[in-house]
Amino acid sequence: MRDPAMIETVAVIGLGTIGTGWVARFAAAGLAVRAFDPDAAQREALPEAIRQVLRDGGHGEAAEALRLSLHDTLEEAVSGADFIQENVPERQAIKADVLGRLDRAAPVDVIISTSTSGLMLGQFQEALSAPERTVVGHPFHPVYLMPLVEVVPGPRTAPEAADAAARFYERVGHVAVTLQKEAPGHLVNRLQAALWREAVACVEDGIASVEQVDKAVVNCLGPRWSVVGPHMAFHLGGGKGGLRHFVEQLGPGIQKRWNEFRTPDLAAMTDTLVRGVEEEAGGRDLNTLQRERDRKLSALLAHLAG
Amino acid sequence: MRDPAMIETVAVIGLGTIGTGWVARFAAAGLAVRAFDPDAAQREALPEAIRQVLRDGGHGEAAEALRLSLHDTLEEAVSGADFIQENVPERQAIKADVLGRLDRAAPVDVIISTSTSGLMLGQFQEALSAPERTVVGHPFHPVYLMPLVEVVPGPRTAPEAADAAARFYERVGHVAVTLQKEAPGHLVNRLQAALWREAVACVEDGIASVEQVDKAVVNCLGPRWSVVGPHMAFHLGGGKGGLRHFVEQLGPGIQKRWNEFRTPDLAAMTDTLVRGVEEEAGGRDLNTLQRERDRKLSALLAHLAG
Repeated sequence: MRDPAMIETVAVIGLGTIGTGWVARFAAAGLAVRAFDPDAAQREALPEAIRQVLRDGGHGEAAEALRLSLHDTLEEAVSGADFIQENVPERQAIKADVLGRLDRAAPVDVIISTSTSGLMLGQFQEALSAPERTVVGHPFHPVYLMPLVEVVPGPRTAPEAADAAARFYERVGHVAVTLQKEAPGHLVNRLQAALWREAVACVEDGIASVEQVDKAVVNCLGPRWSVVGPHMAFHLGGGKGGLRHFVEQLGPGIQKRWNEFRTPDLAAMTDTLVRGVEEEAGGRDLNTLQRERDRKLSALLAHLAG
Repeated sequence: MRDPAMIETVAVIGLGTIGTGWVARFAAAGLAVRAFDPDAAQREALPEAIRQVLRDGGHGEAAEALRLSLHDTLEEAVSGADFIQENVPERQAIKADVLGRLDRAAPVDVIISTSTSGLMLGQFQEALSAPERTVVGHPFHPVYLMPLVEVVPGPRTAPEAADAAARFYERVGHVAVTLQKEAPGHLVNRLQAALWREAVACVEDGIASVEQVDKAVVNCLGPRWSVVGPHMAFHLGGGKGGLRHFVEQLGPGIQKRWNEFRTPDLAAMTDTLVRGVEEEAGGRDLNTLQRERDRKLSALLAHLAG
């Protein structure tokens, strides 16, 4: 695999929200980006959008020095790239086609990383000629702000490819967590879905409203888990005996609760949840809410990094 | 109920970690505190511990002006108090005895709030002469830092008592979320347990280590949920259609994952989890880790509040 410290040019394939976020992230780190999307309008809008994101994020110099080329075929975008980040729609047939074309177009020492959140790499690797250099590099929205990238090896990914991808992501300012094997939803979206399942059950049972759930999480679990993860939080909440004492004291009660959790019917709860989040929004439109979130998140992440 | 804006003197019953945290919170807000614990050593250590917490938290003036009296009976501590915060051990018989004594000792317009996390108020209210002024006021560790208090009415709590307790907690700088009814674990500990259940399942399945789970949460879900709650996060992740579009697009996949989640055996996983968190600690002892957490959490909460 190419040395992650020497990667100079990245191909970004698919320019939706995630692909655009990657372009901004790579450009902010001073790398050259070769971008492809089959939709010409997406391509043409890209440079100005990236410059805007970079300027807003305090990367004025990177905006001036932007090295971004637009390509109307995938093969042309990949040519000369040291690393490939793929972000095409989350549909089996599209992913299979694009990963196959990337595999044929790129030298075998170039890593092909897919941003997929909902699919698993294992189902595509058999059809590739060099599956060992393919890996999942799953980022979080907004990609140019959120630190984490999940690096997930498929069954045929070479350990050195996963390792090189992780080191490359760290180089562009991400925090990489390399999972031990693939699973539907990787790790974070599983954890997030598990908490949300119980939140929806609590709303359905009339324990709390949508807005109360959000307010409780924002004023407790969010700040706590920005500082220590769930295991470390319990380790430090267990008195002198740490996590072992915590589990000995509270384990039976937690196990009982685990056993009693139930699975709500999301489709049946949709109207209630949408009404609840609209009450929480209190008339602010999506655009306003998004700008507010980005401003707060950006300031928070700068605080945490500083 | 007494007007929460006029509360001047608070009785704090039980001076473990939670009780001590409440004393610091009330003292920082300039209130007079009457404290009781059956253990004389706990009582005697209190004033210096509180002054230390106040000074470390930038409340030097409150430390100088501290109005804290120590009492060797519960009844004496309660005498003259406008609000009672109870924090005795989480055992049914002890709580029943203490709540009964508080109920007999305090005028009926004084709110008795219990910090219980593991018990429910409903099982105690029948035995009280004035159950309508009892409520759960469940804080989070460290009480003098963490914004959230869950206010939980029992079946016989008067709505105006829950409302007055919430307003009083807001007055001393907390964010109060008043649940609609009681449930085992209230709200936040249920949500936390739900995420942890899936985290332990992922560790057991060999998807991720304890340290990887913590690192992923700290670098993604923690910061995200410090800014927007889980529903609002999905609302803003649904493109132009908000939460409804999000559920229509991703709902079936999420429902499938919900249905497939399984319940690990916590007792069988304890050794693995303890080993994992010790690796994560990397030789730092509990004291060091706690100080590190408190320093980071305190700075983070100051950032979020400012």
